Amino acid sequence: MDTQKPFVIGVDLGGTNTVFGIVDARGNILAENSIKTQAYKTADTFVEAGVVCLTPLIQQVGGVSNIAGMGIGAPNGNYYSGAIEYAPNLSWAHEGVVPLAKMFSSQLGGLPVRLTNDANAAAMGEMAYGAARGMKNFIVITLGTGVGSGIVVNGQLLYGHDGFAGELGHVTMVRGAEGRPCGCGRTGCLEAYCSATGVARTAREILANTRRPSLLRNKPAEELESLDVSIAAGKGDEVANEIFQFTGKMLGEACADFAAFSSPEAFIFFGGLCKAGNLIMKPIEEAYNQHVMSIFRGKAKFLVSGLMNANAAVLGASALGWEE
Amino acid sequence: MDTQKPFVIGVDLGGTNTVFGIVDARGNILAENSIKTQAYKTADTFVEAGVVCLTPLIQQVGGVSNIAGMGIGAPNGNYYSGAIEYAPNLSWAHEGVVPLAKMFSSQLGGLPVRLTNDANAAAMGEMAYGAARGMKNFIVITLGTGVGSGIVVNGQLLYGHDGFAGELGHVTMVRGAEGRPCGCGRTGCLEAYCSATGVARTAREILANTRRPSLLRNKPAEELESLDVSIAAGKGDEVANEIFQFTGKMLGEACADFAAFSSPEAFIFFGGLCKAGNLIMKPIEEAYNQHVMSIFRGKAKFLVSGLMNANAAVLGASALGWEE
Repeated sequence: MDTQKPFVIGVDLGGTNTVFGIVDARGNILAENSIKTQAYKTADTFVEAGVVCLTPLIQQVGGVSNIAGMGIGAPNGNYYSGAIEYAPNLSWAHEGVVPLAKMFSSQLGGLPVRLTNDANAAAMGEMAYGAARGMKNFIVITLGTGVGSGIVVNGQLLYGHDGFAGELGHVTMVRGAEGRPCGCGRTGCLEAYCSATGVARTAREILANTRRPSLLRNKPAEELESLDVSIAAGKGDEVANEIFQFTGKMLGEACADFAAFSSPEAFIFFGGLCKAGNLIMKPIEEAYNQHVMSIFRGKAKFLVSGLMNANAAVLGASALGWEE
Repeated sequence: MDTQKPFVIGVDLGGTNTVFGIVDARGNILAENSIKTQAYKTADTFVEAGVVCLTPLIQQVGGVSNIAGMGIGAPNGNYYSGAIEYAPNLSWAHEGVVPLAKMFSSQLGGLPVRLTNDANAAAMGEMAYGAARGMKNFIVITLGTGVGSGIVVNGQLLYGHDGFAGELGHVTMVRGAEGRPCGCGRTGCLEAYCSATGVARTAREILANTRRPSLLRNKPAEELESLDVSIAAGKGDEVANEIFQFTGKMLGEACADFAAFSSPEAFIFFGGLCKAGNLIMKPIEEAYNQHVMSIFRGKAKFLVSGLMNANAAVLGASALGWEE
């Protein structure tokens, strides 16, 4: 850490907004601003707008000479290449490779810029400022529109041979014809069951297969969302709790396989679903301890992100800024 | 690497024999000797016999001052503790923790001694002397009595939080009641299908479910071994090839999940089953490319160990001796 340069920039590049933040070494976000990610036709005009947005923030902390580096968390971000590669949901990056790190760096006087995907950024954030402080082996699982993961081994993010390691949302949980179709084009992936849309689908399936009363019947089935399940489960709704049992079992069994891989000290969950607290965390941990190899049983911690209330994505990305 | 000390000791501690070898920096085994692992009642007497066996080998290369270190590959060996922990198949280590590294070190004048499990030792050997030279991200899968693995990430063995990472033989391939019982006490593990006994079981199941002629019917079903399947497959036996298709599909689908985890440059297979060459390797690679996420498809190499004909276990363990 360059003590001469007390700040880093964190960038959370999402499908809707791109948020820029100036962060200090303790994880305080001192200044923040954002632009609409998809209001630009090309990557060049996006970067231009980003620099315009950033400039007053940088001036606020005394200029770029006070900034150690910048980190970007972005969908399909590749750490090795510093590029966004074929991101299906970004209008200016869905058909090619956008070397975003290099583009920002050259617009910011050669500032070191690193880029990774959003789940890896979340793991960096947990290690620097969150629930994984002091840990060297842990896995962050993000439960959102998709299911993502950031795997830390020996204190380093696991990028693998090509920069794409840590796609734990796409391990196969249900093999063969029974598996649900997944957004990745295959079937039976963890994401197809445990993402927000996966949970909503489970809700519709369970409601259709039973006549039991449920708060979830107050809404047309096709409008049900993961959040409705959380709210109903919080009110003690039996069907909603069954949905969480099913989801938690799937996640717990997946974590049992992940333990056989990297034997982490903790599994840290991040995203909307975790706001249900023990209603989802308990089924996960129970299924894990029931299914994991005996040498791992009872050892791993199951934690909710320590960054849920802060702007975790900005903080996580900013942690990359200290790497230089 | 200490150029003043040109040799290391590699120890392959197996259920039957314990082989000691003196190895140089190019991976030549200059001298070798062995003792019977289970001819001793206690760990103390085993270590004593090991030192007696080693002493003339050490003298042959000019004494212990020429030895940089010693590496031991042993079942249930834990790298962090340097101990064999509750090894079910070792008479003097099945009920406790034997700090073998420390015991040998103190008998050898404080020589640095490191210990790991046999599959991790195999991965070290591939990286130092075998098919993984120059690779920083790869997975070795050992197909023997059991299915083991050694995972290398960023050029380092993945030991995890407690030293027990890399148990890929025990990821769950068949969930629920259909899963075969596994030696670990659970069901549906990769090992239950792809170990030597797993392959023999597949053979018995397929033979019982069909009336097709097969060379495998020349032996009583209960005496069939994995090797019989290899020999029959080599002769073009259709049923034997179906057994390899089934086994290869299981391994390929498992590797597809492993890619989502650590995205390795190569999967390296080691053990008797690999001697069947393409008859088993082709089904593995085909199933992998069929099942893996599209971003990984066609990227990973599928290799047979580069150490199959040398004393790979001794070489692998010896690679640990250079770590000091």
